[in-house]
Amino acid sequence: MVNPPKSAILHLLNMSLYDQLKFDPATGLIPAIIQEQKSGRVLMMAWMNRASLEQTIATGKTHFWSRSRQKFWMKGEESGHTQAVKDIAFDCDGDTLLIQVEQVGAACHQGFKSCFFRSVEGDGSTFKVTERQLQTPEQIYGKKK
Amino acid sequence: MVNPPKSAILHLLNMSLYDQLKFDPATGLIPAIIQEQKSGRVLMMAWMNRASLEQTIATGKTHFWSRSRQKFWMKGEESGHTQAVKDIAFDCDGDTLLIQVEQVGAACHQGFKSCFFRSVEGDGSTFKVTERQLQTPEQIYGKKK
Repeated sequence: MVNPPKSAILHLLNMSLYDQLKFDPATGLIPAIIQEQKSGRVLMMAWMNRASLEQTIATGKTHFWSRSRQKFWMKGEESGHTQAVKDIAFDCDGDTLLIQVEQVGAACHQGFKSCFFRSVEGDGSTFKVTERQLQTPEQIYGKKK
Repeated sequence: MVNPPKSAILHLLNMSLYDQLKFDPATGLIPAIIQEQKSGRVLMMAWMNRASLEQTIATGKTHFWSRSRQKFWMKGEESGHTQAVKDIAFDCDGDTLLIQVEQVGAACHQGFKSCFFRSVEGDGSTFKVTERQLQTPEQIYGKKK
């Protein structure tokens, strides 16, 4: 193991987070991977614009930008399944976030802890469901969805 | 806990992986989160087109599409830091992959195990380096980079 080159690190530490990040020039968005800190389970991936990242940092709850609804939203605003932020990391290229959270209930709107509840089998012609559903969408959202 | 609704699951199991996935209509790409299976560490996020996913499944080594170089590539083809695929999951919307791997060496081209080696401090005006660099880029790539 070697230490990180000190000159490079000192240079980086003089720059703010937003100098390091590359929001997509066309959409203004950056993908955010959400990981449950205590289990290491990757829960979901969603998109943030600068305002939702600022709000996430300011409030300690994850906020996103919905591409399908073209809407700013707080995770859990309807379901109550909020995410308390424990750490925000970003990658070497500055174009992806990795956020550690404490998850209330199911992260997936389909009632699974993680949105990644299906895995490929064999050559990709079939797949399997890998975790139990905690709630049905009807139990989470009532008749809303 | 409730079981997944059987009718929904049976319906899904009759469809192939590629029926479930949404590659971006403009670019033909899907983001792939790469996680080290044994540690749970998220190593990187990269992009796949259908050919790179097919090659990943066929060979058991991760293959991607580089947006910056507009090039099909196998992870580790220059560095030797290949990724042996252990599991391929996909999310509820079918627009993100989560791939479990066994990583040889550093996943990051900057010589860190994970590309997410920096985390935000406080209000986002500063950040810290959270892991040790295993190798310098020069040690990995010689004079190539």
